[in-house]
Amino acid sequence: MTSSTLDRMTGAELFFKCENFQKVGAFKARGATNAIFSMEESETVRGVCTHSSGNHAQALTWAASLRNIPAYIVMPENSSPVKINAVKDYGGIITFCEPTLEARESTLKEVINKTGAIEIHPYNNLRIIAGQATCAAELFEETEKLDILIAPVGGGGLLSGSALSAYYFSQGTKIIAAEPEQANDAWLSFTQKKFVPSIHPDTIADGLRTSLGSITFPIILQYVSEIVTVSEESITTAMRLVWERMKLLIETSSAVPVAVLLSGKIDFKGKRVGIILSGGNVDLDHLPWRE
Amino acid sequence: MTSSTLDRMTGAELFFKCENFQKVGAFKARGATNAIFSMEESETVRGVCTHSSGNHAQALTWAASLRNIPAYIVMPENSSPVKINAVKDYGGIITFCEPTLEARESTLKEVINKTGAIEIHPYNNLRIIAGQATCAAELFEETEKLDILIAPVGGGGLLSGSALSAYYFSQGTKIIAAEPEQANDAWLSFTQKKFVPSIHPDTIADGLRTSLGSITFPIILQYVSEIVTVSEESITTAMRLVWERMKLLIETSSAVPVAVLLSGKIDFKGKRVGIILSGGNVDLDHLPWRE
Repeated sequence: MTSSTLDRMTGAELFFKCENFQKVGAFKARGATNAIFSMEESETVRGVCTHSSGNHAQALTWAASLRNIPAYIVMPENSSPVKINAVKDYGGIITFCEPTLEARESTLKEVINKTGAIEIHPYNNLRIIAGQATCAAELFEETEKLDILIAPVGGGGLLSGSALSAYYFSQGTKIIAAEPEQANDAWLSFTQKKFVPSIHPDTIADGLRTSLGSITFPIILQYVSEIVTVSEESITTAMRLVWERMKLLIETSSAVPVAVLLSGKIDFKGKRVGIILSGGNVDLDHLPWRE
Repeated sequence: MTSSTLDRMTGAELFFKCENFQKVGAFKARGATNAIFSMEESETVRGVCTHSSGNHAQALTWAASLRNIPAYIVMPENSSPVKINAVKDYGGIITFCEPTLEARESTLKEVINKTGAIEIHPYNNLRIIAGQATCAAELFEETEKLDILIAPVGGGGLLSGSALSAYYFSQGTKIIAAEPEQANDAWLSFTQKKFVPSIHPDTIADGLRTSLGSITFPIILQYVSEIVTVSEESITTAMRLVWERMKLLIETSSAVPVAVLLSGKIDFKGKRVGIILSGGNVDLDHLPWRE
């Protein structure tokens, strides 16, 4: 998608990759299908599993249903009913747990011991990263040479995949990562060149609260040009702008690259800039400008 | 756009024409540009005018600005600030009036007397109708033969244009009009085969409150197959469904054809059905499911 309004506001030529229109409403469908469909037949017998409260749970369940194998999902008991129902609708087998990382991990271990299912991590997995990489690859195919591509960073699956796609398919395209100031662990890790975990992230961009992974971080260090952080207020403003002017329903995490675009922290004038709008799964009863 | 979810819900193969992505956020840009650009150079000198509180005001002002001629817009003083600002942004010259049809018409007459501007009616104008007709024409070009096309009906500009497009470019495509039960003047006019005005329409679909015109009504009588009315509740449900599942920001009037699709009043099973999503101009502070 393009937008003459946002082009005018930034002085750039913008190309939006709309992963809100992707299956299950987010780019996560890419990694999940790649992970599921690159498994050997023999590996699939006992199914797959993960812990997730968000889009990865839906994506993995959906992809598993396409190959007709069971998907065991560990979800925190306080997950939103919308997300729980979505996983159930795709046929996922849910185990609830306390809403802590420890409980999620220990419950997942129990599920693995009981079922023998293969864990598919939401981002720290090469097949997931390769799947997410197809998003930027498609955008490079669909547009003439981009000067810059902006992607959001949470665990780094989409970002590392995008960076690898640029390296292999679009050399000369700078990769800029977008992160909330209030969940700036990737920025800290990147500038200090050593892993800093995400502790008490406090951002409305709920897809970007996770820490980088042992596989994603080195790729990011090597192939990403810059990480830019933005305020909560600017994320809300960017989200509303995209809804009002582009008529695209995007989720908070998708608004973070748009906030970078509008932040004035980087001069985009005269540049051809790609922006990944990573997803569109929104709870319409809780919009950030209504809180 | 297509949607596997809505295909599954209806048993039909659906093709959505997304006029929410149109310039000024609604199909009205089509009629306005056609009306403005089919004027003789000599006619343009004194500019154009209309009374409108909605999308037509923006569309006409925008189209006039493309040809660099003045646009005089009479708006009720209770118009939403968003819409007033949009008209101002495009360079429209606004005259405010009392929020009654009488005041709008008499104020417009004064403006015409003072400026000599040519009135461009929002729908009862052949050039406007021809412009709106390009929407269905494009959908017919973009899809294989459709069995049915559903368009909303307010004043009938979009509907009569769509019906003419089917007649000339896609014979065999049935035109079904979608109307709110609580603004069912078109349905009454159609079934009684005589003009019934819209009196006290009470619908959230604010684009569909107007009466048919002396030009649009006969075209509708001749070329439209059926008018189907739907409840307010079903309009809200349909709007929310399109937002949540298709990630498309559509306005209330656009949800009316979708409500017809889901109403069970017509059997769409196995049919190829086009749906015009007429616009996406929404006040995000006043969503129908939040009132």
